[in-house]
Amino acid sequence: MEADAAKLIGAGIACIGMGGAGVGLGSLFGHFLEGALRNPAAADGQFGRLIFGFAVTEALGIFSLLIALLLIFAV
Amino acid sequence: MEADAAKLIGAGIACIGMGGAGVGLGSLFGHFLEGALRNPAAADGQFGRLIFGFAVTEALGIFSLLIALLLIFAV
Amino acid sequence: MEADAAKLIGAGIACIGMGGAGVGLGSLFGHFLEGALRNPAAADGQFGRLIFGFAVTEALGIFSLLIALLLIFAV
Amino acid sequence: MEADAAKLIGAGIACIGMGGAGVGLGSLFGHFLEGALRNPAAADGQFGRLIFGFAVTEALGIFSLLIALLLIFAV
Amino acid sequence: MEADAAKLIGAGIACIGMGGAGVGLGSLFGHFLEGALRNPAAADGQFGRLIFGFAVTEALGIFSLLIALLLIFAV
Repeated sequence: MEADAAKLIGAGIACIGMGGAGVGLGSLFGHFLEGALRNPAAADGQFGRLIFGFAVTEALGIFSLLIALLLIFAV
Repeated sequence: MEADAAKLIGAGIACIGMGGAGVGLGSLFGHFLEGALRNPAAADGQFGRLIFGFAVTEALGIFSLLIALLLIFAV
Repeated sequence: MEADAAKLIGAGIACIGMGGAGVGLGSLFGHFLEGALRNPAAADGQFGRLIFGFAVTEALGIFSLLIALLLIFAV
Repeated sequence: MEADAAKLIGAGIACIGMGGAGVGLGSLFGHFLEGALRNPAAADGQFGRLIFGFAVTEALGIFSLLIALLLIFAV
Repeated sequence: MEADAAKLIGAGIACIGMGGAGVGLGSLFGHFLEGALRNPAAADGQFGRLIFGFAVTEALGIFSLLIALLLIFAV
């Protein structure tokens, strides 16, 4: 296989990493919302931590997207 | 393998990333609905955060779709 | 491997994405039903959100199906 | 297959490790937030452990990113 | 395929092991924190066991990293 072909397969595989970040984000927001519906008064106070957790999880998905785009266009 | 063949396999693999986002969305809405059924009065107040979580999770799935379509039609 | 063979492998792999959406849908309806059985009176009021969550999760599975059909018939 | 091609496929596969760390981070923050919403007064006292858990989980994702970048640019 | 190429693919695949350890760490700390927030007074007494669980889980991720680096640089 030539490098020209391998990078296209690699870009496809890199998307699986995005899927994992998607699972994590769904779990994060799902549990937050379940807790927020049980105790809505406290939800605003935890919003900063929700955003922090969202940012670091989303970052891993964006890194995967970066690797995929890098493999398609830059290598 | 030639690049012509590799991109078709890569597009198929990229769909696994969509599957991960699907797992996340199901978990997100499932936990929200379980909480909303326990405390329906608070469900409207958390709807904005549900949509926010939905948007960032769906985005990762759409990125995977983008890579798949890119591999099929643009490379 | 020629492109003619690769697209058939790619179409098969794309189905894993449908499997992920299936996990998500199962989790979504499962948690909804658990909540609905605890508080059946509120279930009708959340039905709209259930359908919304179902639609966006199913969409990711349909996108994977689309890529699979595209790989078999259109490429 | 030449090493030139193999490293690009390897970089793509390394992204799956990032996805796993993403699943872990989502689960970590999700459960923390659910607990914090049930007992907001204690949330600040456990914040140090949240950050410790976040750091060691994120580290595994960053190691995967490191391997991916190493494979693309350094090998 | 030559051994020169195979070891680079192997290094990428080794990262999947890191991802699995990441899922485990997230689940470990997440469940600990949820329990610690329900009963904060007992959290300090269980901290030693948290660290023990963390160490053996992290070790598996580090072993994967070791194999990946070994494949790239030492073989």
